[in-house]
Amino acid sequence: MTLFTHDQWISFGDCDPAGIVYYPNYFRWMDRTFHAFLEGHGGHRALCARLGSRGFGLVETNVAFRSPGQEGQRIRYHLDRIDWAGRTFEVHFRVTEDERLLLEGFERRGVFVDRDGRIRAGDVAPLRAALGLEA
Amino acid sequence: MTLFTHDQWISFGDCDPAGIVYYPNYFRWMDRTFHAFLEGHGGHRALCARLGSRGFGLVETNVAFRSPGQEGQRIRYHLDRIDWAGRTFEVHFRVTEDERLLLEGFERRGVFVDRDGRIRAGDVAPLRAALGLEA
Amino acid sequence: MTLFTHDQWISFGDCDPAGIVYYPNYFRWMDRTFHAFLEGHGGHRALCARLGSRGFGLVETNVAFRSPGQEGQRIRYHLDRIDWAGRTFEVHFRVTEDERLLLEGFERRGVFVDRDGRIRAGDVAPLRAALGLEA
Amino acid sequence: MTLFTHDQWISFGDCDPAGIVYYPNYFRWMDRTFHAFLEGHGGHRALCARLGSRGFGLVETNVAFRSPGQEGQRIRYHLDRIDWAGRTFEVHFRVTEDERLLLEGFERRGVFVDRDGRIRAGDVAPLRAALGLEA
Repeated sequence: MTLFTHDQWISFGDCDPAGIVYYPNYFRWMDRTFHAFLEGHGGHRALCARLGSRGFGLVETNVAFRSPGQEGQRIRYHLDRIDWAGRTFEVHFRVTEDERLLLEGFERRGVFVDRDGRIRAGDVAPLRAALGLEA
Repeated sequence: MTLFTHDQWISFGDCDPAGIVYYPNYFRWMDRTFHAFLEGHGGHRALCARLGSRGFGLVETNVAFRSPGQEGQRIRYHLDRIDWAGRTFEVHFRVTEDERLLLEGFERRGVFVDRDGRIRAGDVAPLRAALGLEA
Repeated sequence: MTLFTHDQWISFGDCDPAGIVYYPNYFRWMDRTFHAFLEGHGGHRALCARLGSRGFGLVETNVAFRSPGQEGQRIRYHLDRIDWAGRTFEVHFRVTEDERLLLEGFERRGVFVDRDGRIRAGDVAPLRAALGLEA
Repeated sequence: MTLFTHDQWISFGDCDPAGIVYYPNYFRWMDRTFHAFLEGHGGHRALCARLGSRGFGLVETNVAFRSPGQEGQRIRYHLDRIDWAGRTFEVHFRVTEDERLLLEGFERRGVFVDRDGRIRAGDVAPLRAALGLEA
């Protein structure tokens, strides 16, 4: 039931002196996976323009690290599902190397719009429709 | 009651095309704050050697983003407290610009040791003692 | 004769599995040093607005790595001088830890402006004046 | 006559507030391309072990930026050739998007070995042989 997958090869420079992935890189690749997913629906920039949004920024994230990634491994980001609420949506991920689970978690994001001189989280329904993910 | 603070100046290159901090950078600075805190207790490398540990890696993290950071702002990471369990410890952070809250959350870490050819989470009590944070 | 200095503490996560600074990080800090220098002259954003520029982007860079940086060291970026040409300027750097030289090199940058639907390198003299660095 | 190519999709988070690639990322991808090239010859770790080297670190780099990269573009790193000297070797790159040239330059690297308690640049001939690139 996975919506999208994105593969990432772990390079020497992605790892720290302990020889495992420096953990902020997992978030760079999570954000990259979300944007690569949007690319199949016109891309982030075009979707923002169409929805009058400044961006689909982060509200919260939670990730559990189950097993470390190392130099030379090819890992797969699985964008498993998106849970939609009124003004936020949760993008759920798993990361695997073959059968091994490296991490799992979510990014909660909003559809941010400028209103009355402030940045606010708008209705997420138009984005859901643009992605063809209506209930 | 904050244990440690670390200041970070947000540079142009820390921000994304929406003009706000690219969120994985917040995790780089969170990890940096934890390591700067350890520096006052001998430093990460010396603590690892003393405790026979490979490193104090991540088990889980949760962060809520309350307000965006922008180019040129000076933000402060507050390491507010550490909650100790048997084999993990939670490092709680807040990030502020003056009175404004940017984000809050925690890193849950372990004291990883090599045992029987595998990497395992060991007892955290020796690290707690080394940091002078016994109950 | 140094125009500006910027200090940087090398954290665990800035280093690679060989235990030395992952070299692209030196460029992040070089760019940061240049932007911190601009901060003392109104900041990058205000200077761009004043000069009608999109940004002071890179045209070329050359860096020689003399000695490696390691976790826990405090290094200093010296912005030694700026050499001005017609449409580019070279920002010369040295990086030291006390007396030890880690690297030296330059960023050649332009003052990019939108003209006839394209991005072009404009005259650098107005930036030179704004920085108070006329000959 | 290119030895190796590596493709890279530019994501939103790779770009800065000017909407173009934050330039240190080009170096991350250059280093990644070199390591991906080594992967076809056993990989960095195995080559280091075989040659008794700590790593093939940087001695110098020079890059000219010809045209900016933007969000959503797929760019190609071309590892065009390696020039071998006694104790260093230059890895020459070009980066293109279709026919457009984005940047060109080199990484000069050494084969670093521990000797007499110091890290020194060793003979590069064994690496050249291991890569099957003898004259």
